Amino acid sequence: MKLPFAKVHGAGNDFVVVKYPELSDEEFAKLAPILCDRRKGIGADGLLLVRRDPEHDFRMVYFNADGSRASFCGNGARSLVLYTWKEGMAPAEMTFVSDAGVHKGLVVDGKPSVSLPDPKDIKLNLTLHEFDFPLHFVESGVPHVVVLVENLVSFDVDGVGRSIRNHPKFIPAGTNADFVQIHPDNSISVRTYERGVERETLACGTGAVAVATILHRLKGIQPPIEFNFPGGTLRVSFELKGSIPTNVMLGGQTAVVFKGEIELP
Amino acid sequence: MKLPFAKVHGAGNDFVVVKYPELSDEEFAKLAPILCDRRKGIGADGLLLVRRDPEHDFRMVYFNADGSRASFCGNGARSLVLYTWKEGMAPAEMTFVSDAGVHKGLVVDGKPSVSLPDPKDIKLNLTLHEFDFPLHFVESGVPHVVVLVENLVSFDVDGVGRSIRNHPKFIPAGTNADFVQIHPDNSISVRTYERGVERETLACGTGAVAVATILHRLKGIQPPIEFNFPGGTLRVSFELKGSIPTNVMLGGQTAVVFKGEIELP
Repeated sequence: MKLPFAKVHGAGNDFVVVKYPELSDEEFAKLAPILCDRRKGIGADGLLLVRRDPEHDFRMVYFNADGSRASFCGNGARSLVLYTWKEGMAPAEMTFVSDAGVHKGLVVDGKPSVSLPDPKDIKLNLTLHEFDFPLHFVESGVPHVVVLVENLVSFDVDGVGRSIRNHPKFIPAGTNADFVQIHPDNSISVRTYERGVERETLACGTGAVAVATILHRLKGIQPPIEFNFPGGTLRVSFELKGSIPTNVMLGGQTAVVFKGEIELP
Repeated sequence: MKLPFAKVHGAGNDFVVVKYPELSDEEFAKLAPILCDRRKGIGADGLLLVRRDPEHDFRMVYFNADGSRASFCGNGARSLVLYTWKEGMAPAEMTFVSDAGVHKGLVVDGKPSVSLPDPKDIKLNLTLHEFDFPLHFVESGVPHVVVLVENLVSFDVDGVGRSIRNHPKFIPAGTNADFVQIHPDNSISVRTYERGVERETLACGTGAVAVATILHRLKGIQPPIEFNFPGGTLRVSFELKGSIPTNVMLGGQTAVVFKGEIELP
């Protein structure tokens, strides 16, 4: 059986996308590791299925490369917004549903963005005796600690990230850790240690929202805020409900890279 | 401009293949890193071009993922033999030419093999005071040291491989290093440290030929000899000219994984 697919990426997070597939979710859970294998398959961080939904433009189903199902993925969702719009499967203002709920997607000038949950549980200037810098916490869908640093290029993101991720203060859930540098030209660089992946990743959507929330509160930086991650650019826009961001939209670098057809085993 | 391509692999060595392209070699040298990018491109160890040749079934042109041109690649050649036969571009007994010369390709029962140069410069039981085991040397297109070990799974291939690769005995060319275990059921496992890559790779074609040569000389093992590499199975067959292998053919796991079309930048 031949399976048509597209390969998409959001800021270096890459995905195999399959449109309206006939196979079941259970069958795709088994196929995900085969399709996502970077040498003997197509190669991707995850597999995105676009399924029909009676009440929304589509349903997003997401499997990690290991075949485990995840409820949502910010860069995956942005990739799907661009893909479904390009394929004529959804309008430029769309709604879709994932295991995590209903999301808004928006394409402006060919650039996709997607809604994320309002940030909550903000705690500024936490001091922990293991670290000689203040930590800022925010839950932006998943927990994040944000740390401002002087020199991000040489910063030990994996080492310090792992210490923060495993610190007793954040058990049992643990936390992601975002390290941020504001440059003299006001451009902003971010590197993120991701819980679950357990190392630095190329870009993190909820991390961008966490950093935007903290920089707005600490430095008064106004949206939209653009961040340079190692894998590409992410952009966060939001409105304000008091001092708390609301109607958060995540945009940034996204591309449909190629289309293909693979013979299933 | 849309570029049709296929993705193929030989024992985990993976390649983007482009058939009779209109662009020049110089243009593909620039495109190789873009096409081979594993997150924002198609993703591969290298780029293989199939060009027309007046005297042979085709000409193979090979670029590493970094855009540098290499004269030959054993797993790449095996992949091209399968691909061109499947596409009806070459018969099951074919000849093709690369920057390294003329090669024979053969497809039997849908399985491809390719000719490699006769092994030469064989030196058995070298002893070096840095190592408490004998080293066996053979030049099988590129230089290889072969070492028999008791427990390949736990063997420090990167550490010991690097020491052998950089040993003064083998300067200035350096050497690859293949570590081999013969199991009680007579199956044979190999792990290879590759010069140039400077670490263990998933499989090595010239390494398989080197190991076959040494095992034939030391243990009388007769061809065809099959080897389990971490990336898949390779098989070496040869005839004998005295005690030296000749007419060496390298076969093993090979697959055309998928076909696609990418928009060039």
